[in-house]
Amino acid sequence: MAEPDAPGPRGADSLRRSNAAAVLRALRDEGPGSRAELAARTGLAKATVGTIVAALTDAGVLQPDAEAAPSTGRGRPGRRLTLAGGRPVGVGVEVNVEYVAAVVLDLAGVPQLELTRDVPPGGDVTAHLAALARAVATRLREQDRHVLGATVAVPGLVGGDDRTAVWAPNLQVAGTGLAATLDTAFGWRGRTRVSNDADCSALAELHHGAGRGAGDLLYLTGTVGIGAGLVEGGRLLRGARGFAGEVGHLPLGAAHARCGCGRSGCWEASVGLHALLAAVDMPEAGTPVTTARAVAAAAADDPELAEAVAGLARWLGRGLGVLAGVLDPGRIVLGGYFAPLGDLVVVPARRELAATLATSDLGVPDLVLGELGTEAAATGAAQRSLADVFAGRADPFAGTSAAEPGDAEEAGESGEAGESRTG
Amino acid sequence: MAEPDAPGPRGADSLRRSNAAAVLRALRDEGPGSRAELAARTGLAKATVGTIVAALTDAGVLQPDAEAAPSTGRGRPGRRLTLAGGRPVGVGVEVNVEYVAAVVLDLAGVPQLELTRDVPPGGDVTAHLAALARAVATRLREQDRHVLGATVAVPGLVGGDDRTAVWAPNLQVAGTGLAATLDTAFGWRGRTRVSNDADCSALAELHHGAGRGAGDLLYLTGTVGIGAGLVEGGRLLRGARGFAGEVGHLPLGAAHARCGCGRSGCWEASVGLHALLAAVDMPEAGTPVTTARAVAAAAADDPELAEAVAGLARWLGRGLGVLAGVLDPGRIVLGGYFAPLGDLVVVPARRELAATLATSDLGVPDLVLGELGTEAAATGAAQRSLADVFAGRADPFAGTSAAEPGDAEEAGESGEAGESRTG
Repeated sequence: MAEPDAPGPRGADSLRRSNAAAVLRALRDEGPGSRAELAARTGLAKATVGTIVAALTDAGVLQPDAEAAPSTGRGRPGRRLTLAGGRPVGVGVEVNVEYVAAVVLDLAGVPQLELTRDVPPGGDVTAHLAALARAVATRLREQDRHVLGATVAVPGLVGGDDRTAVWAPNLQVAGTGLAATLDTAFGWRGRTRVSNDADCSALAELHHGAGRGAGDLLYLTGTVGIGAGLVEGGRLLRGARGFAGEVGHLPLGAAHARCGCGRSGCWEASVGLHALLAAVDMPEAGTPVTTARAVAAAAADDPELAEAVAGLARWLGRGLGVLAGVLDPGRIVLGGYFAPLGDLVVVPARRELAATLATSDLGVPDLVLGELGTEAAATGAAQRSLADVFAGRADPFAGTSAAEPGDAEEAGESGEAGESRTG
Repeated sequence: MAEPDAPGPRGADSLRRSNAAAVLRALRDEGPGSRAELAARTGLAKATVGTIVAALTDAGVLQPDAEAAPSTGRGRPGRRLTLAGGRPVGVGVEVNVEYVAAVVLDLAGVPQLELTRDVPPGGDVTAHLAALARAVATRLREQDRHVLGATVAVPGLVGGDDRTAVWAPNLQVAGTGLAATLDTAFGWRGRTRVSNDADCSALAELHHGAGRGAGDLLYLTGTVGIGAGLVEGGRLLRGARGFAGEVGHLPLGAAHARCGCGRSGCWEASVGLHALLAAVDMPEAGTPVTTARAVAAAAADDPELAEAVAGLARWLGRGLGVLAGVLDPGRIVLGGYFAPLGDLVVVPARRELAATLATSDLGVPDLVLGELGTEAAATGAAQRSLADVFAGRADPFAGTSAAEPGDAEEAGESGEAGESRTG
């Protein structure tokens, strides 16, 4: 337990995957490099690197960098190689009360496809997810992509099997229905994973957004509900049952504030989207993000509105102070509806955060806004779909082509339905 | 960042240490084994295991198990080997307001020496530490031990250098004075580490006490101050600056409760030792643990006293609910003065913990009492002194013999004095 990274015995397949993963990570994390540079970065023999590079180049995952190799008559060996995507991709999907979103990333982390569809009030989330997944699968089939995996980000708790939504109070999606819906769309069984949305967003901001360079990070979602994704030393913290960061219903809000869960004093009853709308006395205007934009625009000319937002931000900062005291994150990233509010939220929250931390004279975590907007969770979900390849647990060439059309039409009706509803 | 355990190139020395560490871990974690079993457990070649085993046996660290090898005329190869301690030891020391304690562990994790000395009210902690360290060094020199390292556990924050106490509000020991005091006693320079006491206790309970078998653990200290040691997946969580678990002054207590830090509402103002004494209207009776024993004895026949303790325990459970919501530990271990109070604290705290967690219908962390008592922190500090050997970062044979007597007399007066005081 104390040394999880202890070396152990390895089979040939496992060693090949592990070596390919080392080359892929070296290119992802340190940029393009020649075979000799990759051998130096990974500690692998040059011949081993040569074999891996040849296979990855054939698969279109690596591109020899023409410019870096002025023609010296010596050909390939000196050329720098760039991680360039190619056929293998990872699919990430987010389901939420207001929308479903999909992001497809190639191995270079470059988005190949981004789709978002609003879910109308009272709409059937699972049916919208099924339609979105069919659209994604069709496009990827047309592009002849290899789908390495698919991950659904949900605003709730996920079981230890990485497939079962066990508690998603704002969304009627408990069970394995979401996973089964994507399984059907991609024509496989049991391969789709389900993951917490805050965890996914934290990963996405860590690698692609406001968390770059921070090894220790707390990401806070902001919609009707509030949840945290926690990264320590570059790793997601999940806790004993995967429930770490489930902070929305902790007693960190105003004692009298009634929560949708039926209790009082929950943090999200003081800082969730409904608390904002009550504080500024404005109606919902589309998604949480578009609503927050409307609030920010109105508050720009209205000090009373700005002070109402500041009151909410102080509860935000106080709760963040408690979380920061427990975790000591180097950086806190505010996502969801908080991001468009900018300094209206950040300035008062930062002050209250510092006042809450007994150790504030020793330094306070940076409090910054997320950069990835509504696509953070789906982007992180797509990253999780690629993680096995970068960790050497899956083969970059072993992906499945997108589903047969016949299967896709059955979306949501086969597999374990759980508590999902299909329209 | 995402794959901190990626394999890299290795030098010969590093490889030798790493292989020796793999054998030591295999024996510590899975019990005695023959050379062939150790080769299977570690994935190392039998010849490599043979060389390591021979060196460790010569150093007295491994003992061939006579019983497991009925004389077949084939001699050593079939014998099971047991991790048996030998000369190399790790030293752990705890400094606290009321006492200083030392525990010396051999590589088998068996205590070789345990010393505790009370610090009288207003006494000079650093002077008591120096005297204790001299006594430990003298004994280890008499026993011809090799001291692999020494670690001081402090109730406060420790800097990223693992040597500087940067914030220990209940103890006047900021700076590197504590580390320098042990350096002098052991006749080395700059090798003593300083570590947070809750972190040390968490490690000790994880491996030797109430945390056995729990990969995710929250340990709570209980003296005048309150602090948490956090373990996730067998690893200590430290946070960006090593301040994770610094929970005593978070606003988790009764709003009106005045704290020693000058603010109100701090958790330790509601659940620290002084809050207990005020609730039961009893005087301090020696250490926090002996005081708590007196309270438990009195409350056994006095329902009013028991209810006063229960009132404190509810604040404890509520704060633990917040911590558990953030971290999702599988088990919570109550140390310090909480342990002697037993069910007086555990029963009401457990109820409030469950009520605080929104996810309580999905399961609540186990709440249990620590088993190591006053020696938890020093035991964990000694474990930390051995950690480099088990991680392959230090050589089990490279320890230093205990200090020369001449040096030890200067304890606390040489080295960087920081804010330490010598008597």
